[in-house]
Amino acid sequence: MDLTLSQGLFALQSLSLTEIQSILRRAQEFCDGVPMPDYSSKLACNLFFEPSTRTSYSFQVAQNRLKMRSLIFSSEHSSLQKGESFYDTIKVFDCFNPDLLIVRHGKEKFYEEFAGSIDTPVINAGDGAGSHPTQSLIDLITIKQEFGYLAGLNVAIVGDVLHSRVANTNIEIMQRFGMKVFMSGPPEFLKRGMSFFPLLELIEFCDVIVMLRVQNERHDSKFSLKDYNFKYGLNSKMLSLMKPGAIIMHPGPVNRGIELTEDLVECSRSRIFNQVKNGICVRASVMEAIFKSLI
Amino acid sequence: MDLTLSQGLFALQSLSLTEIQSILRRAQEFCDGVPMPDYSSKLACNLFFEPSTRTSYSFQVAQNRLKMRSLIFSSEHSSLQKGESFYDTIKVFDCFNPDLLIVRHGKEKFYEEFAGSIDTPVINAGDGAGSHPTQSLIDLITIKQEFGYLAGLNVAIVGDVLHSRVANTNIEIMQRFGMKVFMSGPPEFLKRGMSFFPLLELIEFCDVIVMLRVQNERHDSKFSLKDYNFKYGLNSKMLSLMKPGAIIMHPGPVNRGIELTEDLVECSRSRIFNQVKNGICVRASVMEAIFKSLI
Amino acid sequence: MDLTLSQGLFALQSLSLTEIQSILRRAQEFCDGVPMPDYSSKLACNLFFEPSTRTSYSFQVAQNRLKMRSLIFSSEHSSLQKGESFYDTIKVFDCFNPDLLIVRHGKEKFYEEFAGSIDTPVINAGDGAGSHPTQSLIDLITIKQEFGYLAGLNVAIVGDVLHSRVANTNIEIMQRFGMKVFMSGPPEFLKRGMSFFPLLELIEFCDVIVMLRVQNERHDSKFSLKDYNFKYGLNSKMLSLMKPGAIIMHPGPVNRGIELTEDLVECSRSRIFNQVKNGICVRASVMEAIFKSLI
Repeated sequence: MDLTLSQGLFALQSLSLTEIQSILRRAQEFCDGVPMPDYSSKLACNLFFEPSTRTSYSFQVAQNRLKMRSLIFSSEHSSLQKGESFYDTIKVFDCFNPDLLIVRHGKEKFYEEFAGSIDTPVINAGDGAGSHPTQSLIDLITIKQEFGYLAGLNVAIVGDVLHSRVANTNIEIMQRFGMKVFMSGPPEFLKRGMSFFPLLELIEFCDVIVMLRVQNERHDSKFSLKDYNFKYGLNSKMLSLMKPGAIIMHPGPVNRGIELTEDLVECSRSRIFNQVKNGICVRASVMEAIFKSLI
Repeated sequence: MDLTLSQGLFALQSLSLTEIQSILRRAQEFCDGVPMPDYSSKLACNLFFEPSTRTSYSFQVAQNRLKMRSLIFSSEHSSLQKGESFYDTIKVFDCFNPDLLIVRHGKEKFYEEFAGSIDTPVINAGDGAGSHPTQSLIDLITIKQEFGYLAGLNVAIVGDVLHSRVANTNIEIMQRFGMKVFMSGPPEFLKRGMSFFPLLELIEFCDVIVMLRVQNERHDSKFSLKDYNFKYGLNSKMLSLMKPGAIIMHPGPVNRGIELTEDLVECSRSRIFNQVKNGICVRASVMEAIFKSLI
Repeated sequence: MDLTLSQGLFALQSLSLTEIQSILRRAQEFCDGVPMPDYSSKLACNLFFEPSTRTSYSFQVAQNRLKMRSLIFSSEHSSLQKGESFYDTIKVFDCFNPDLLIVRHGKEKFYEEFAGSIDTPVINAGDGAGSHPTQSLIDLITIKQEFGYLAGLNVAIVGDVLHSRVANTNIEIMQRFGMKVFMSGPPEFLKRGMSFFPLLELIEFCDVIVMLRVQNERHDSKFSLKDYNFKYGLNSKMLSLMKPGAIIMHPGPVNRGIELTEDLVECSRSRIFNQVKNGICVRASVMEAIFKSLI
């Protein structure tokens, strides 16, 4: 592993395929029961400026598994309440001299604001509608566990592509790994320069269906969810049309009844909770890779 | 200890008296200074969906004393804010594969919602007006420390019996241990099939007076607290009528001036803060019992 | 170290200059890389009833560096929501028998409320407009690092003196150490018995300019910030008038553009982020001093 990760992980674009494969290989070792290294002298500060369950707590669990010490920032209890800026908050934590900052913020490319001003490596745990590198690594490993390979697989990414950092990151990295990515969803969610296909066309030949959460909190006017599942979502009818061996994924949290009907969330094709499980190993592997790149 | 606890602790009804005595005996050992076992490889996730000071933090302190690692869920920072369900939140934490979940939720028997769907043992830290098993264990050990035995003691449970999970759990377990339980309080708080006695009648022969918090947050219309202490509470006049050696208990938090007048909270008959102290040892003992039942 | 610290640290007035020098000397050792002692058997409970970033999290980081266990109280999740009092909350934590309580509360001299009622040592992490002992220790060590000595230095304390616990504590301790302290700011912020000087008069001979945060949250009517920087704050013009070698300090969080213009926060004279860095070593040293005084 070279020095690419010594400043942390902002976006997967900065990593070579070899580096990503190395992170995924190590994550798989952790999943297979290889003992995690002991980083009990390391301190991670977790700063989430937007709500999170999966990402936030799986980072914390991964830190626990690595025997690291974790510090949890809570914006409501912080000086943000007295008007302190995001930049100054990050600077304060950098002054504490921890070993790692895990940051989620609603602003796209938030990390550019303090690039060059801090010394602590930062993992981007989601930057607005920008990117979500560790989630995409989770998606890749989940697919790899299923099919044994990535190149050549057909993937449908379905739903709120416009506001999804997961879609952004997945499209880029999946294409780099030789997967064919198709998108589907309501016209309101179409991104400039992309084409949407009817899900009915994709369902028959795609190996992976990635459903995206409708991000109500990022819509300017309230997007209507009436008929959403019928028109753009997965249900038992669509399930019956899926290619043999094809799987359903979703970064979570699922809007049950919207992106998927209730019965599909834990159906035999669903890998939704496998993605959650893989979160621990992937995030442990990323943190280890950063620490190793600092030696 | 057999396998009854391998799924955790939902209600005391599922435990035999022998099992409960074994948990209490071990808790008393911890209170007496017997070193707690080292569970430094264990991770507990604490998920409180309702406010708590005593229960929540005494579980955390007990985890600390057992050298466990603790993770604290905060609903305000979680995907509940994006509409994720209680069930999915618990499933996500189950996927993290911790050793224990401590859960408080406003819904009665919340644990039935995910029974059979998760692998991690769960301790019920309060389910709405349902039950509160660890609090009742604390009450039992506090009484045992005072009198040396349980069977035959007369106990008055006074106040908001209707909304009190502590009352529910205490009545059941105290009667099983051969204690005689009498209830008192305003007619609004009477439960179907129970009888209320005037506190003035009970005060002279009861060995233990358990005052219950008036749970304003669970009353549909605001219950009036005017004259509450005079009519249904404890004050210096009632104190003077208590049986020699009798003690006052309260699960907390006390509404000072309502259930008890200010001067009684820390009076010589009060065991209210002893209950808090016993919380650490009891909860450590319960957690140990669960871990032992998993071997 | 004698027993002065066995009950904790409420205000610097209770410490002798020798004791303070001993704490600062040890803090400097930590800053210089002397390994911190291992207090892995110690548990600190951090109870902040007012927002904080620097103080709250630097205490947590310092506890981490000392390998202590930390428990973080969150008032929103606590029984304060059910009406429990501050006193009872502190009593509950005292019953948990931790090794240390770190408390911030909006009420001046909050610690007098439970003096004599609890056994656990308490560090005052800010009591309303009262005092903030660890911040003043940070200010002292930051100045000492710069000049090598304290006595004889001229210090300007500028701004919201009236509502500032930092100003209160600094004035007292700096004068005890033989520093000459001058104040400046808008007349609304003048304290009875003090004199304010125009900043323009102080700027030329003061070695240290301590800017105070305008504490909007403590003003009865909204104080106007229009022209504040021009009239009472620091900007490039004032910077050019500063004495050679003089430094700028601020306890944070900075209202950028108010107390200081943006460009000054990280200018070569600013020690604002050094103060943050020193927070870890100073707070570790104070905690160690308390533990040592208990032996």
